Amino acid sequence: MDLETGLARLADVCVTVGVNVQPGQELIISAPLEASALVREVGRRAYQRGATLVTCLYDDPQLIVDHFVHGDDASLDAAADWMYRGTAEALTNGAARLYVVGPYPDLLNGIPPDKIVRLHKAMAQASGAESALTATSRVNWSTVPFATHSWARQVFPALGDEEALRSLWEAIFDVTLVSAADPSEAWSSHNRALNARRESLQARRFDALRFYDGTTDLTIGLVEGHRWLGGTVVAANGIEGMCNMPTEEVFTCPHRARTEGHVLFSRPLALAGTLVTSLRVEFREGRVVSAAADSGIETFEALIRSDEGASQLGEIGLVPNSSRIAQTGILFYNALFDENAATHLAFGQSYAACLTPADESGADAGHGGANQSSIHIDAMFGHAAMHVDGVSRDGHATPLMRHGDFVIDG
Amino acid sequence: MDLETGLARLADVCVTVGVNVQPGQELIISAPLEASALVREVGRRAYQRGATLVTCLYDDPQLIVDHFVHGDDASLDAAADWMYRGTAEALTNGAARLYVVGPYPDLLNGIPPDKIVRLHKAMAQASGAESALTATSRVNWSTVPFATHSWARQVFPALGDEEALRSLWEAIFDVTLVSAADPSEAWSSHNRALNARRESLQARRFDALRFYDGTTDLTIGLVEGHRWLGGTVVAANGIEGMCNMPTEEVFTCPHRARTEGHVLFSRPLALAGTLVTSLRVEFREGRVVSAAADSGIETFEALIRSDEGASQLGEIGLVPNSSRIAQTGILFYNALFDENAATHLAFGQSYAACLTPADESGADAGHGGANQSSIHIDAMFGHAAMHVDGVSRDGHATPLMRHGDFVIDG
Repeated sequence: MDLETGLARLADVCVTVGVNVQPGQELIISAPLEASALVREVGRRAYQRGATLVTCLYDDPQLIVDHFVHGDDASLDAAADWMYRGTAEALTNGAARLYVVGPYPDLLNGIPPDKIVRLHKAMAQASGAESALTATSRVNWSTVPFATHSWARQVFPALGDEEALRSLWEAIFDVTLVSAADPSEAWSSHNRALNARRESLQARRFDALRFYDGTTDLTIGLVEGHRWLGGTVVAANGIEGMCNMPTEEVFTCPHRARTEGHVLFSRPLALAGTLVTSLRVEFREGRVVSAAADSGIETFEALIRSDEGASQLGEIGLVPNSSRIAQTGILFYNALFDENAATHLAFGQSYAACLTPADESGADAGHGGANQSSIHIDAMFGHAAMHVDGVSRDGHATPLMRHGDFVIDG
Repeated sequence: MDLETGLARLADVCVTVGVNVQPGQELIISAPLEASALVREVGRRAYQRGATLVTCLYDDPQLIVDHFVHGDDASLDAAADWMYRGTAEALTNGAARLYVVGPYPDLLNGIPPDKIVRLHKAMAQASGAESALTATSRVNWSTVPFATHSWARQVFPALGDEEALRSLWEAIFDVTLVSAADPSEAWSSHNRALNARRESLQARRFDALRFYDGTTDLTIGLVEGHRWLGGTVVAANGIEGMCNMPTEEVFTCPHRARTEGHVLFSRPLALAGTLVTSLRVEFREGRVVSAAADSGIETFEALIRSDEGASQLGEIGLVPNSSRIAQTGILFYNALFDENAATHLAFGQSYAACLTPADESGADAGHGGANQSSIHIDAMFGHAAMHVDGVSRDGHATPLMRHGDFVIDG
């Protein structure tokens, strides 16, 4: 598929299925400068659907680099609070939100990890109110990828720049279903399958999940009132959207104090410009008690020391090995893709949407065991040899996945 | 001067003389996407001087066009209030502000003027709080030009695209003094000259100014406590900056009800994408009573009907014909340049900074005759044959300018 057609189709499903912007609604987009071609396709379609206003907050990666390289020490605690307060206000007043994800993996080469973690924390704090609004789906929002040159070089290091870019776009068009004959129908069908899996898991009300493959043996306890999510979400404003494009996962909320065992992560984590490879972690009573990696361990350890909840779990997501992203065989080095390529957990903040309302407003200060943190870091550990059991309160194990694929699908 | 050197020097004087960003200060930039090369030069220097955070709000002109072309009727009253509230908040908390002006004169070709005026009004209302903060110099702020392709084509229609762009940059580097051997010293010297002229006018406390050349005969009454401005401004935060680069004017505040006579504007007005040429206007008791033009009169009339004060004057600015911009002989079709190439007046909002503090807080609801409006439109009527007299309360006339140049400079 040529780039122009692909971008037009990606913008189509982004506007109609992903963020699903409504007549009379404002749309706020964030995107790197390089992604203006997609932003413009999205903007035009949003106005054609009756959006009142489309605003794009463009990120200039060079300003970020210069902040690290030339900013003084105090500047590393500075974030644009006023801008995030503005977007949070707009979302509260009904604006839809779209994040165009175009990574620059080589942007911060050579910047000390502790500087990156510090600025990351300042930005997470500043954007906290906005993140809370999207995490609880107060409004319709979505995330859509854009192939930057930097990202393409990382994913296809053996190819020339233009071929790498073309290959990454091909993969993106494939996994976002825009290569399908009818992308809109393909998304409907995909959504029905995710919904069925989610409902099947919800009905079983497991107490814990156990993951094992000979190396990894990890048991993750679930919050009692956990809720499985996956596929479209109906936001509090009544608008149904698909928060991630692509998406393959069903996911829910671990109990922050009930993870036990050890896990080898099957895919590298791309953290604040650093790659953490072959990460091994041991948990006791929900908390990381030891961690090792072939590279990048300092960055990982700095991040999970960010605050009290950063070394505990906030999400567990199940993805079959037969998923479209896993089947590309490509390592995307990006959470939006890689977390949808393999079963994963996340360190840090849990999603309030993964708790039944009773637990959200429950008497337990920890929302029945849901975790709280300024970070949320996805880490992939699923692969083609992984088995998963659902464990009931009385210890009975039900096979959920065998050799990386679901055995409960209808 | 090659583009790279010129941009670097322009960024230098912009950061050190124009906005004069201070250690520990935040800087908020607005710029069109095309101006990222200058934004980045400015951003790096700002961090090097100790700025805590540099944020650029990039404008995407295509989103603006699509708003007009594809947005429905109600969308024309929509503006990003949340963003302007954010920037106003940041300025209130001490952030410096820089506007990179990169016009797109052919952007809105074919869009009906009433649509443009309507959206312009919505944006002016949304940005009112921010405009009030800069107009009263609560913080250091500045304006700096960037040569877009669209602008270069308009200014040099006979040249090829690349030559037009090169010629526009040459002119910009010339009038912003970055072609000087020592741009920083050139700005100091220029500022001393403007200060001396300003003080000379201030000391004379004229009651009115009379402009005449055989065709035009216009008398503009001044607010009793008017203050002449020009050159650097010391903002309320104590930081001295140059609000416009380039700048050649000294200016003050007319009395909104005391302009009489008729004027032929010597340069076209570029208004909301329309060119108003050979504009003739008659004033009685401060208000426009008739207007005609060779082209664009509908747009002009729509704008001066925006609100009660839109047809009255908010500024009178004196610029000698020997000014560097006038001497280029170039018509820039942009207020930042053309208002500094010729003596001009402005329809609409006055500058509070042009009133002595006593008048600002005075008992008179109209601030002693200062005008209020949602618009501020500069219109150039000075030229090489214009004479200007200062008129005292008793009717005595003092020659200020003869044949377009000052006769009061020391």
